[in-house]
Amino acid sequence: MQGIFSDRISDVPRSFIREILKVAIDPTIISFAGGLPNRDLFPVEEIKKAAIRVLEEDGKRALQYGNSEGLFELRKYISERYMKKQHLEIPVENILITNGSQQALDLLAKVILNEGDSVVVEEPGYLGALQTFSVYRARLIPVPVDEEGMDVGALKTTLLNEKIKLIYTVPNFQNPSGITYSDRNREEIAHLLRGKATILVEDNPYGELRFSGENKRSFRAIIPENAVLLGSFSKIVAPGVRLGWIVAPDFLMEKIITAKQAADLHTNCLSQRVVYQYLVDNDVDLHVKKIVEVYGRQRTMMLSSIKAHFPASVKSTEPDGGMFLWVTLPRGMSAMKLFHESIKRKVAFVPGDPFYVNKTDVNTIRLNFSCSDEKTIEIGIRRLADVIKKNLRYL
Amino acid sequence: MQGIFSDRISDVPRSFIREILKVAIDPTIISFAGGLPNRDLFPVEEIKKAAIRVLEEDGKRALQYGNSEGLFELRKYISERYMKKQHLEIPVENILITNGSQQALDLLAKVILNEGDSVVVEEPGYLGALQTFSVYRARLIPVPVDEEGMDVGALKTTLLNEKIKLIYTVPNFQNPSGITYSDRNREEIAHLLRGKATILVEDNPYGELRFSGENKRSFRAIIPENAVLLGSFSKIVAPGVRLGWIVAPDFLMEKIITAKQAADLHTNCLSQRVVYQYLVDNDVDLHVKKIVEVYGRQRTMMLSSIKAHFPASVKSTEPDGGMFLWVTLPRGMSAMKLFHESIKRKVAFVPGDPFYVNKTDVNTIRLNFSCSDEKTIEIGIRRLADVIKKNLRYL
Repeated sequence: MQGIFSDRISDVPRSFIREILKVAIDPTIISFAGGLPNRDLFPVEEIKKAAIRVLEEDGKRALQYGNSEGLFELRKYISERYMKKQHLEIPVENILITNGSQQALDLLAKVILNEGDSVVVEEPGYLGALQTFSVYRARLIPVPVDEEGMDVGALKTTLLNEKIKLIYTVPNFQNPSGITYSDRNREEIAHLLRGKATILVEDNPYGELRFSGENKRSFRAIIPENAVLLGSFSKIVAPGVRLGWIVAPDFLMEKIITAKQAADLHTNCLSQRVVYQYLVDNDVDLHVKKIVEVYGRQRTMMLSSIKAHFPASVKSTEPDGGMFLWVTLPRGMSAMKLFHESIKRKVAFVPGDPFYVNKTDVNTIRLNFSCSDEKTIEIGIRRLADVIKKNLRYL
Repeated sequence: MQGIFSDRISDVPRSFIREILKVAIDPTIISFAGGLPNRDLFPVEEIKKAAIRVLEEDGKRALQYGNSEGLFELRKYISERYMKKQHLEIPVENILITNGSQQALDLLAKVILNEGDSVVVEEPGYLGALQTFSVYRARLIPVPVDEEGMDVGALKTTLLNEKIKLIYTVPNFQNPSGITYSDRNREEIAHLLRGKATILVEDNPYGELRFSGENKRSFRAIIPENAVLLGSFSKIVAPGVRLGWIVAPDFLMEKIITAKQAADLHTNCLSQRVVYQYLVDNDVDLHVKKIVEVYGRQRTMMLSSIKAHFPASVKSTEPDGGMFLWVTLPRGMSAMKLFHESIKRKVAFVPGDPFYVNKTDVNTIRLNFSCSDEKTIEIGIRRLADVIKKNLRYL
């Protein structure tokens, strides 16, 4: 069928990770490549109890169509949790429930972006966001991030040079790098945006998974009119329930609701009610604490193994939370080449390439520490160290 | 924030039905306005058992991320049901699970439509589809439907005059009109499309809810390369589980998977597993039969009440299935005016206006018969008849 596809979809490449992970399905491979939360920590029994309760007490309502904004009680819970955890006052009316925060991003892009509009993304940045913005044919402008946050000088220049509609950030324990923006960095970014018609997205799926350090201020507290928050139950409850949300200023909400209606009418009612019931019937903070303890121990083991076994010329971020860390190999060492050799040594990771907009054959890699126990991490890092050392000789 | 919205969203009007139904929330009003399946028929207890089983036997997997195509077992079940019910051979690889069929439509539009592309829609046609196509800024070309199906002459002229990328149809028990395309009508439409780069969407949410008459041939059986099928569990199981699907030819599948990934990664895993478990552990055909009996009786009562009480100058379709029928008032009688007067008499319906692309102040109305019992239907139609008769005097 000649010419049947839209221009927008013709441009989007096949998922790099999808392709690369096909190589790594061998179960004898130690995989630091995934981006999944640890399934051993899912509250299966508690979700079962919640499901039984919902279906026994209000089954017909849970199985009927719902409204596009999402379940009121769940939105109220989210609003109250923002207050409790971050002292953020967020009216229920400014929260809409989505199928994971990926959909929140898609709806926002739909509402905001015309073809060719400029969007600032982090370099390196979250793949799923890069893909969504590509579908809307945005012009992606990467701005580097490091352990302080986003490069304010580069951002300032970009904002002077052109109209930026959207800035996409994951300021806490970023995917892929694990870095967190400092309070000062946030203030400086906010200062550049105040009064401008630019939306700043604070995507925060990992925010509650903090192992060390202090919580930082949300952009919503600094520039409420510009900030859009994305949240998710994927990392603190479970991803299979597909529940995320978007927090947007008043002027955006009506259009986001319209976009949600046209996209899929509303989010799964059964899932919303079951997760709400789970949240009110259980001590969620205790559950999050358990996740933080496990991931924190695994992060520590990964960092100490890296220090013990990697050559000193290899650098790593030291995340205070989340699920990933980011390794910079010696200049000239190809992450893709390393990947293929590592697979032979039965250890996998994601080469940095797909996290950049314009760069290929980079020397950075993403390592996930949420899904492997400490012993496995130690073995995997040792194997990876061997491959790196072998490659050092050829530089 | 001046100029922050995308052009696509600026064009989409507020949902007419959303607005109009605000008037009708008074519980003492008899409502034929809704579009909901009857919640008293939801298999609540069976879904509960399925949820318990899924969470006990495979809870961790049900709560983890899934793949973008959807649960393999569920897709296989759908494939087998197509064979059993319609003798359609549909490979599992050509099925992708969505959040209700509304999302299937959104993904297809995303993959196919550029701004300004022409799409044929039924007149009157399904609102949700009109809204989705508006978001992608398609040019909507209405082609009339009647009790035989789509007006083939009008379609032929349209196809001669311009390039049509998409034709959207609900050929079985259409929403809003309740009509079904005849086999001959389908053949004639297919004949016009053979060899053309035009996709025909057969949206079929009500297909299994047949009260009388014989099943008609799917467009997939007649023009497989052009036909895309949309299906849904909303009307045969429950809508709150948000599960639909799309069946597309090979050349479309990869792009649809990419669009799904960028839209929300994948459909709710828990919901997919629970519904799959429900489907294999229960006699679904028996359940569908129960729905058909209840809706069929209510349809019959609505038709006989209409015959008994409406003036002879009012015409109604006589659906063989589904949830709606379509009433044409005498020429010059305003459905909107009738709506406001009916609300005062405590009976509600949806005026025809939102189901047309370019017409307003029409004389048609949609009546839903799935959600009211026979006694209520009789009372409601009597009330409506009184209001119509009163209005006849002013014509």
